[in-house]
Amino acid sequence: MQLGMIGLGRMGADMVRRLTKGAQQCVVYDVQPAAVERLKQEGVAGATTLEDFVAQLDKPRAVWLMVPAAVVDATLEKLVPLLDPGDIVIDGGNSYYHDDIRRSEELGARGLHYVDVGTSGGVAGRERGYCLMIGGEAGVVQRLEPIFATLAPGAGAAPPTPGRGTGSANGSANSASTAEQGFLHCGPQGAGHFVKMVHNGIEYGMMAAYAEGLNVLRHADAGRHARDTDAETSPLRRPELYQYDLNLADIAEVWRRGSVVGSWLLDLIAGSLAGDAELANYTGRVSDSGEGRWTVAAAIDEGVPTPVLSAALFARFSSRGNADFANRVLSAMRHDFGGHVEKSATPDSEQKR
Amino acid sequence: MQLGMIGLGRMGADMVRRLTKGAQQCVVYDVQPAAVERLKQEGVAGATTLEDFVAQLDKPRAVWLMVPAAVVDATLEKLVPLLDPGDIVIDGGNSYYHDDIRRSEELGARGLHYVDVGTSGGVAGRERGYCLMIGGEAGVVQRLEPIFATLAPGAGAAPPTPGRGTGSANGSANSASTAEQGFLHCGPQGAGHFVKMVHNGIEYGMMAAYAEGLNVLRHADAGRHARDTDAETSPLRRPELYQYDLNLADIAEVWRRGSVVGSWLLDLIAGSLAGDAELANYTGRVSDSGEGRWTVAAAIDEGVPTPVLSAALFARFSSRGNADFANRVLSAMRHDFGGHVEKSATPDSEQKR
Amino acid sequence: MQLGMIGLGRMGADMVRRLTKGAQQCVVYDVQPAAVERLKQEGVAGATTLEDFVAQLDKPRAVWLMVPAAVVDATLEKLVPLLDPGDIVIDGGNSYYHDDIRRSEELGARGLHYVDVGTSGGVAGRERGYCLMIGGEAGVVQRLEPIFATLAPGAGAAPPTPGRGTGSANGSANSASTAEQGFLHCGPQGAGHFVKMVHNGIEYGMMAAYAEGLNVLRHADAGRHARDTDAETSPLRRPELYQYDLNLADIAEVWRRGSVVGSWLLDLIAGSLAGDAELANYTGRVSDSGEGRWTVAAAIDEGVPTPVLSAALFARFSSRGNADFANRVLSAMRHDFGGHVEKSATPDSEQKR
Amino acid sequence: MQLGMIGLGRMGADMVRRLTKGAQQCVVYDVQPAAVERLKQEGVAGATTLEDFVAQLDKPRAVWLMVPAAVVDATLEKLVPLLDPGDIVIDGGNSYYHDDIRRSEELGARGLHYVDVGTSGGVAGRERGYCLMIGGEAGVVQRLEPIFATLAPGAGAAPPTPGRGTGSANGSANSASTAEQGFLHCGPQGAGHFVKMVHNGIEYGMMAAYAEGLNVLRHADAGRHARDTDAETSPLRRPELYQYDLNLADIAEVWRRGSVVGSWLLDLIAGSLAGDAELANYTGRVSDSGEGRWTVAAAIDEGVPTPVLSAALFARFSSRGNADFANRVLSAMRHDFGGHVEKSATPDSEQKR
Repeated sequence: MQLGMIGLGRMGADMVRRLTKGAQQCVVYDVQPAAVERLKQEGVAGATTLEDFVAQLDKPRAVWLMVPAAVVDATLEKLVPLLDPGDIVIDGGNSYYHDDIRRSEELGARGLHYVDVGTSGGVAGRERGYCLMIGGEAGVVQRLEPIFATLAPGAGAAPPTPGRGTGSANGSANSASTAEQGFLHCGPQGAGHFVKMVHNGIEYGMMAAYAEGLNVLRHADAGRHARDTDAETSPLRRPELYQYDLNLADIAEVWRRGSVVGSWLLDLIAGSLAGDAELANYTGRVSDSGEGRWTVAAAIDEGVPTPVLSAALFARFSSRGNADFANRVLSAMRHDFGGHVEKSATPDSEQKR
Repeated sequence: MQLGMIGLGRMGADMVRRLTKGAQQCVVYDVQPAAVERLKQEGVAGATTLEDFVAQLDKPRAVWLMVPAAVVDATLEKLVPLLDPGDIVIDGGNSYYHDDIRRSEELGARGLHYVDVGTSGGVAGRERGYCLMIGGEAGVVQRLEPIFATLAPGAGAAPPTPGRGTGSANGSANSASTAEQGFLHCGPQGAGHFVKMVHNGIEYGMMAAYAEGLNVLRHADAGRHARDTDAETSPLRRPELYQYDLNLADIAEVWRRGSVVGSWLLDLIAGSLAGDAELANYTGRVSDSGEGRWTVAAAIDEGVPTPVLSAALFARFSSRGNADFANRVLSAMRHDFGGHVEKSATPDSEQKR
Repeated sequence: MQLGMIGLGRMGADMVRRLTKGAQQCVVYDVQPAAVERLKQEGVAGATTLEDFVAQLDKPRAVWLMVPAAVVDATLEKLVPLLDPGDIVIDGGNSYYHDDIRRSEELGARGLHYVDVGTSGGVAGRERGYCLMIGGEAGVVQRLEPIFATLAPGAGAAPPTPGRGTGSANGSANSASTAEQGFLHCGPQGAGHFVKMVHNGIEYGMMAAYAEGLNVLRHADAGRHARDTDAETSPLRRPELYQYDLNLADIAEVWRRGSVVGSWLLDLIAGSLAGDAELANYTGRVSDSGEGRWTVAAAIDEGVPTPVLSAALFARFSSRGNADFANRVLSAMRHDFGGHVEKSATPDSEQKR
Repeated sequence: MQLGMIGLGRMGADMVRRLTKGAQQCVVYDVQPAAVERLKQEGVAGATTLEDFVAQLDKPRAVWLMVPAAVVDATLEKLVPLLDPGDIVIDGGNSYYHDDIRRSEELGARGLHYVDVGTSGGVAGRERGYCLMIGGEAGVVQRLEPIFATLAPGAGAAPPTPGRGTGSANGSANSASTAEQGFLHCGPQGAGHFVKMVHNGIEYGMMAAYAEGLNVLRHADAGRHARDTDAETSPLRRPELYQYDLNLADIAEVWRRGSVVGSWLLDLIAGSLAGDAELANYTGRVSDSGEGRWTVAAAIDEGVPTPVLSAALFARFSSRGNADFANRVLSAMRHDFGGHVEKSATPDSEQKR
């Protein structure tokens, strides 16, 4: 099947390569001609203007946008006038599903179909395949199946789940689902990015669980470090219980086999710690690209408690210094009611970093 | 190698079976003769008294306890007098590492060696192998390697981690480690259960991340349910954004392939939801068996923030009704400052359960 | 000064009474004629139609809405056509500040002024006075000062804050502020409700802090209750440390004098516990009326971490059963990896309720 | 009544002054002779050796320790041999109640009585009086009532609580309680510090609630600051909603009158912000002196959820950099699965500090 791809960054270019390798036909476009050129040299059809790009596509066209969420609307503004009724626009980036709902209405008014695809897999996706969470009209999604099936990891990527595919009476197991192949039509427009949003919210929580646990392991030698014994410091009552010097790289590695906490994220952690157990290349300012925020916002709208997902999100905010003023308020209060004077940052005997 | 196993519950019996299959020699004992009998019929040597059990073991003996944490001390009280200097006692259950430190001192005074093994793998371990986190004296742990290697999943259970085993200068990658086989000598006595404790703390956090995320997905249809519009209820401002009826079983399944949140826990969730997407067999009273508590307590001692792990722990406490009084205090305050009257539980238009 | 009041519920009627007692002139209206009649019998001018109500007001009119947030727009739809350019509409309820911004634009287009007032004080406000957080155009707010000054508690309600009113160089102390009287022009339209929103967010956090602490005190006798010793229950290691039978009513009372946690909320708690230390009249289903949600949503937009405020919010969601499905997911996972069977709710030896 | 006071730091010296002013007789001792000298010049009897100190006290003696928790045991080691059966030792500092239980047993074996007093009031206590939470034997506590009554604020410090003192049938209101005077016998040894511990836990939660809320207010101008629009940054979707430049000093001041969040802590905040709305004298490294940790630890033992109190505690840990390694783990994971590169700290367009 033919697909036009707009946006040849890290993700877009690799997806084109996976599609091409899977015998799908791609036409590519990027605002940076060099990115187009690179893929052309790999044998992919490309265009350096949107007009040329659209002209190379067979009607009804299928155009996949793989651009930063912040520029989707600007891209659509230029693209949409070039399209014809019946064409399909797919947003495979990290758009907020609110925008999907709005865009699908705007494009629908022009006879265009809008499909939103939450794409997970990251830099490993070219080899492993991409997990695709799809929102849109059923018939349109079905038309795109060859594309989705090629991008997705395929059924062999994980062993079958016991109990699925047996046509059980309560209907929860869906023998007709494509989930086993790694792509899923989740619901109408926005549903794909909604599911991807929550996927990332979960990701935040899992990442924080690992990070906090490893931090506890790292400080298992707390009893070896003299802690101040002034009134501003809580003493460690039983230093003999914190005398362990643990090898985090080995621990992450051993957990990869047979443990309950095994996961792909853990595989990555094991690799990072193998390279540098101190992770000295990082400062610990953790960005968030929106989905964690949106997940918590959705939870609040729904009245669903998400204490873990929000704690993970807020830890990232704090890592960037955004709690600083709140902390100053705390120190000011401590000073005013108890005469407590802030302790200086160096040297902090309580902690290694 | 020969090993004596005390405690033939779910875990202990399966471990004996895995050891036997792996050509290790086991002698088994349990307070319930029927449990011993079962394994004898499978060809394993067994005893129905501790004296007989000890007598069947070659010196220096190696005795593995796989009993509930609460009865380890009582078991040791009976076992230890029957042992001789040089014998090894292994606690493979879920003991608190504080107890390991105390016990290793008590047994050391009698010339006995104490090894603590955190064992992960659950009911699937017999087939998959067990991830073993080990604390104790180096030489003693080494003596037991045939046992550990047989119980562990082995190197084939996961692909190699890039960057490990290369003897890198900073020492983080340990080419001599057994971590690749699924067992690891973590440090002196208590270190095994310390690492297992944190492992379970992480497990709590991961589980909660999935559970919260799935709950958000489940209520993606919140806009379809009329919500009360009285002063005690926060209205849903944009119901059109919450019109999705998502298939959680399929979503869990699709995430198993290529996504960032793939894990063994997710595999289990997919299986549960395939069986019954409503999980109607569960009431949602979630037990905790201690490690989550201990992890947070250790974090507090160390001064390490664990907002995610503690939120996961407290969600379990709340699931058992332990926040009830606190909630009544909140309702009383709301009544007293604002005249707010508690809303009845049924029917709650905000939520499906 | 003359003020028209629409909405004679608990808050609106008491505010009229306070204004009247403070020599301000009120004209009142409510959709329920009986509510109007009650105040007429107290000597207040009233109307049973909006037309009559508006006719009784001198131009430029000042109309205060004290109606549920959900019906503000519907009320404005009827009211606005009856007003003339230069009239002022004040929303004193719990509107979302997003709506204030929108409404002030809509009304502004017709030459009307919009003022939003966050009103704190609850049922005690008639006697204590109301704390007023005000958003709107400076000149308009100033015109309404007689009203605000009468509703507010006045400077005598709290001792002066050291350091204020001294014209300090850095400008933080505002000698010209009306804050000392209990009302404050916070900024342009929406600012009043924004500040009130965060005020309530803080309120949620404070309430939860008290509630959690009292719950810890209540269970200080945990060591007296036999706890199950099965594998699903974490044992209490040192029951001798939890043998206290504490009198919460007395404790709340003693904290009211000289302690760091003294507050008006604590006064209310002491009153509730004096009446019934078990709070048996409450079930512990805690409503939330929106401001806590909006505060966290604003924090997320701003990138400001609010772990405490969100934990307080989510505890309310959980109190209403909205975590139930998440909890079932946890129980299902525990069953599937560890064979753990859910424990029944009764009798729970761990906790009294 | 006569009281011996050991420890003339900020708290101890002021308590002696309040006692003396209240016509109680004090004998004072401190390891620093200068501290003793200061009070002698104010007319208080003093001693520069423990022996002399003890000799000046009438039997049965009452000795109050007001020393850092970390030196209580060392002080007792020297003091106890000088005392006689029937003497009373009072620990008025911030001891862990575990230590109270142990010490009361040790002292009891010598015929000495041990009383623990949680003392709240801080630097303002000399004028306002101290809130006293007392643990010990009933008769012994009663003997000390003149001391407690003089230190406490007295009934006039707060208006009566409606519903108390009426001898109601359910027993929750205790007409015989001294709580109205600001001191309370909470229970046997340790109960005083247990209640004080939870008091401080609540204090942490309240402080964090204010601090987080003020931080949200501070960043209400987020829409005025250009935020990066790269893939590492979540855009602010509606900047027009965050255009407020709020005066925090005035807001804290206005909340002091009539609002639901009024409290003594808020009074202090208003004072701090009046002095410097930026709180530029503080860096935001917030110490914790133990009670918050112990409160959460007790909650965990009891199985009582304290999400708010623990979030407040962990925010302090994070303010001191103790989450740094966890944050580096997060950044490493983001890099490895998504190719995300950490953003530098300066300039951060998202936030003012």
